Amino acid sequence: MAGPDRPPTSRDLARLAGVSQATVSRVLTNSPRVSPDTRARVLQVLAEANYTPNALARAMKTGRTDTIGVFMTRVTSPFHAALLDEIGRLLGEVGLHMILWNIEHDPEEEVSKVIQQRLVDGFILTSATYTSKLHTIAVASGTPTVLIHRGIDGLDCDQVVGDNWQGAFDAGRYLVEAGHRDIGLVTLKHTGNTSRDRDLGFRAALAEAGVSIKDSNVISTNVAHADGHAAARELLSAKKPPTAIYTVTDLLAFGLLDGARALGVTVPDDVWVVGFDNTDMASWEAFDLTSVNQPVHDIVKAGIDLLRRRIADPTAKPTILALPCPLVIRGSTAHTVVD
Amino acid sequence: MAGPDRPPTSRDLARLAGVSQATVSRVLTNSPRVSPDTRARVLQVLAEANYTPNALARAMKTGRTDTIGVFMTRVTSPFHAALLDEIGRLLGEVGLHMILWNIEHDPEEEVSKVIQQRLVDGFILTSATYTSKLHTIAVASGTPTVLIHRGIDGLDCDQVVGDNWQGAFDAGRYLVEAGHRDIGLVTLKHTGNTSRDRDLGFRAALAEAGVSIKDSNVISTNVAHADGHAAARELLSAKKPPTAIYTVTDLLAFGLLDGARALGVTVPDDVWVVGFDNTDMASWEAFDLTSVNQPVHDIVKAGIDLLRRRIADPTAKPTILALPCPLVIRGSTAHTVVD
Repeated sequence: MAGPDRPPTSRDLARLAGVSQATVSRVLTNSPRVSPDTRARVLQVLAEANYTPNALARAMKTGRTDTIGVFMTRVTSPFHAALLDEIGRLLGEVGLHMILWNIEHDPEEEVSKVIQQRLVDGFILTSATYTSKLHTIAVASGTPTVLIHRGIDGLDCDQVVGDNWQGAFDAGRYLVEAGHRDIGLVTLKHTGNTSRDRDLGFRAALAEAGVSIKDSNVISTNVAHADGHAAARELLSAKKPPTAIYTVTDLLAFGLLDGARALGVTVPDDVWVVGFDNTDMASWEAFDLTSVNQPVHDIVKAGIDLLRRRIADPTAKPTILALPCPLVIRGSTAHTVVD
Repeated sequence: MAGPDRPPTSRDLARLAGVSQATVSRVLTNSPRVSPDTRARVLQVLAEANYTPNALARAMKTGRTDTIGVFMTRVTSPFHAALLDEIGRLLGEVGLHMILWNIEHDPEEEVSKVIQQRLVDGFILTSATYTSKLHTIAVASGTPTVLIHRGIDGLDCDQVVGDNWQGAFDAGRYLVEAGHRDIGLVTLKHTGNTSRDRDLGFRAALAEAGVSIKDSNVISTNVAHADGHAAARELLSAKKPPTAIYTVTDLLAFGLLDGARALGVTVPDDVWVVGFDNTDMASWEAFDLTSVNQPVHDIVKAGIDLLRRRIADPTAKPTILALPCPLVIRGSTAHTVVD
């Protein structure tokens, strides 16, 4: 009998049941070419060995793994952690498992190989950028693919994103309508549509109101808390610092707030701060951050629905959705109009 | 020719190469029973179809998937997100992929089934508790298994944890030596060894110093920021509130600090706060939290090393490691001795 230190193989089971391996295979695949007696004997041995028909064997047979591959970067960012948690939760609700590839740590060639291996029934990409080819490789692989959170303009596949441009526009209009004229913008260097649209939408709102934004008030930086912290020090130590700063992610906003704290600059009395994502942490007293809300649940739900539709019907016409991102006002901005 | 909307199957490839499916299989498995001409023709078709020998087929043949299954809860907690990121990073460094199961969202029976399916070469469990049977099911499945971060006393498998008891003891001694006599303890209801040892070690330090801890100063709660927040309100609104509060995770400490903020209680002037985990966020100005450090990198590195050793030699004697967790002092505690 196979002990717990070695899983029973179909060879072991065949020996135990006194049948050939081929017969074990036939029982596992519900072939009609097995007598009821033999089937019963094999199934009893399987049960005694605590044997679940091997998922790999089943996958080879059915072509389905009930597993979705998720490509993501930066699980340590509060927004991406919440996104990952929601993907796992909603996949679990429909009986699907998740393989997570953190593409931050894997070279692109390695990830490309993984894509070709067809380990999964579908791909979810949450971190597409214009400088990566992974999304085109995924779509070309023929495995059903959905982009969520970050989209790629014109890519012929299912995509569900937040309406980053409109959310950013509304944030810009809110600051302008509150009377701010010296406004700081902290944006990201990377090439995702998220940071691009959160930048362009914000600038459009200011332009529409005739408010120009000084070059020295724009900082293009990296993704970490420390980068927001450094941006605050640069913007707030200027001779005439901005009266409001908008940034394209909450994590940068937390860094901005901590940078202001380190300088003894008071929020919102001395400077307003607006983020983007509306992570849970934005509502904590430590930050109390006004932020544009990303509808994480709705984005993930719609993305998984589209992916399942595509698995069922690979010829379905691609759907591209941009869900509304409303501004949530908190204590990092004064609610009344400033002079 | 199979288009990008449907991956080529071995049947498609056989048809394209003008051979049987069995011949394609023989080429893929390097069988000697294929003529050089036929092999060349099949390989050319494979190359044209951009076909990577199916990983599932390879896994069936070699018994290896180069994939490790990780069972985790609460990826939205800053500590667990950092742990997950480090697991993905270090597995990637040794050429292994990760399947992540968020066991928070899957019923235990479902997870048990997954364990039996042998989708992976090994398991990493980061969230073992005394009320779950998953670790015993994983070990009994015969798939190499390592527990990291949370251990189970007496379980006969590889385990790498932080020395939670000693870290908590040192935190307790630090508060006692600073002169605190009214001390609050915010602990967790769940049944992991982490919260248990972080509770017992702390109490042991106080007992050794002859400092008793009032029942009304002990709160047993759940894992979220909001739970720490509620604990702060309860402890700090007492007639004689504690002068120091220790809690078993940073996330609870962030809630405590925000609860104090909401009440207008100043840290560390009115109350000292000590956490456990030393997450990156503990160093942010918003929290500036004194915390017991968990050596995440060392824990994950040692855990993966043990798992790879066990995959290579399933009969190796289990190793159990508890790595040191030193106290990191920051602004949430005054550095000098209080009266």
